[in-house]
Amino acid sequence: RGIRVGYTPDVLTDATAELSVALLLSACRRLPEAAEQVKSGGWTTWKPLWMCGYGLSDSTVGIIGLGRIGQAVARRLKPFGVRKFLYTGSGPKPESAAEFGAEFVPLTRLAEESDFVVVTCALTPATQGMCNKDFFGRMKKTSVFINTSRGAVVNQEDLYDALASGQIAAAGLDVTTPEPLPTDHPLLSLKNCVILPHIGSATYATRSTMAVLAANNLLAGLRGEPMPHELKL
Amino acid sequence: RGIRVGYTPDVLTDATAELSVALLLSACRRLPEAAEQVKSGGWTTWKPLWMCGYGLSDSTVGIIGLGRIGQAVARRLKPFGVRKFLYTGSGPKPESAAEFGAEFVPLTRLAEESDFVVVTCALTPATQGMCNKDFFGRMKKTSVFINTSRGAVVNQEDLYDALASGQIAAAGLDVTTPEPLPTDHPLLSLKNCVILPHIGSATYATRSTMAVLAANNLLAGLRGEPMPHELKL
Repeated sequence: RGIRVGYTPDVLTDATAELSVALLLSACRRLPEAAEQVKSGGWTTWKPLWMCGYGLSDSTVGIIGLGRIGQAVARRLKPFGVRKFLYTGSGPKPESAAEFGAEFVPLTRLAEESDFVVVTCALTPATQGMCNKDFFGRMKKTSVFINTSRGAVVNQEDLYDALASGQIAAAGLDVTTPEPLPTDHPLLSLKNCVILPHIGSATYATRSTMAVLAANNLLAGLRGEPMPHELKL
Repeated sequence: RGIRVGYTPDVLTDATAELSVALLLSACRRLPEAAEQVKSGGWTTWKPLWMCGYGLSDSTVGIIGLGRIGQAVARRLKPFGVRKFLYTGSGPKPESAAEFGAEFVPLTRLAEESDFVVVTCALTPATQGMCNKDFFGRMKKTSVFINTSRGAVVNQEDLYDALASGQIAAAGLDVTTPEPLPTDHPLLSLKNCVILPHIGSATYATRSTMAVLAANNLLAGLRGEPMPHELKL
């Protein structure tokens, strides 16, 4: 009560969208696995299908949560030859979707038709545990799942089963439950799961901008002036 | 003499450009190092600059060899907020460069001004060993070097020195000398160097297209007919 709270909106959209695409490409083109083969001596003569992955050319990309970050992800993925964007969320956003020709669909259809699913929604009671056994069961065996929003949107036991059984091809997570993820977590034993330590906003430029904004919020608060970005509850 | 040779041009442009971007993002956002921190327990509480990398927002990207693959790379990088594209090669290509507003510059200026250098040129006597001590010495300490063309374009001893001494920030290589790279090669000991086993064209769709084209070349050759793509020397 009486404690004013500043925050740093918008400034991490670009860095987080960039990291989402990095994670998607790393998972679908199997970069960690391929790099490990170089180190272990698994790289030998050329073989037609060795280390092959699934590319974005002519693919369908489904975005869960077409907000600022979701749109920034779609904008970056488009020139990779994506054929069709689908999205879902709390309701259609015709203006945001127009740039990508994105189609609003129910979650079930998004799961069934997408070659790549990217989760960029907020964590709410409606989205908690939303990516579960039913969701992964509808996805294609060749599809790739990416989460850069909040770990609790995903049921991690169900994701593990989907990855271990080949129900889906690969996953990339920048967020987990809990954080940090215990080093003996089963997801860390899978070759087709790339897990990052929540580095969505981790660029020097972004963290510097965040720091300056936080300092300006603080100084304004101390002076009793309007804060550049104050959380209103 | 008298042996006809078929080849498979063009069909791997998209897959190779995609892999080039994947490798660039993986190197600049430090994905392998970050993923390793999750597995090793290095991921603990939030720290302002932990695992920070250099993003593409407002950057200058220099492309060595603005051919089909170089252009496809630029097209994919543009929506990440790249401020300026530079390129070099055997001569200006105003038509290819127009789409990106890319400026033709000498190699030395490209090295000095680029935040990201991407090598997508052919290996020729003129490009062999081109990326050497002088080249890396001109690059910025915050810059990232990517090679998805041929290993021999790079002097690997000079690249090792540049990475180990902090002369440049990071590198990503899909090609090396020799291939496969010996597992005890010094480059493999560096945290800021991502090395992949020449997987530029390794997507199921691309390899399938390559196989069909190779088979059609072969069948036409056996029948004494014109091949879809015959190498003319």
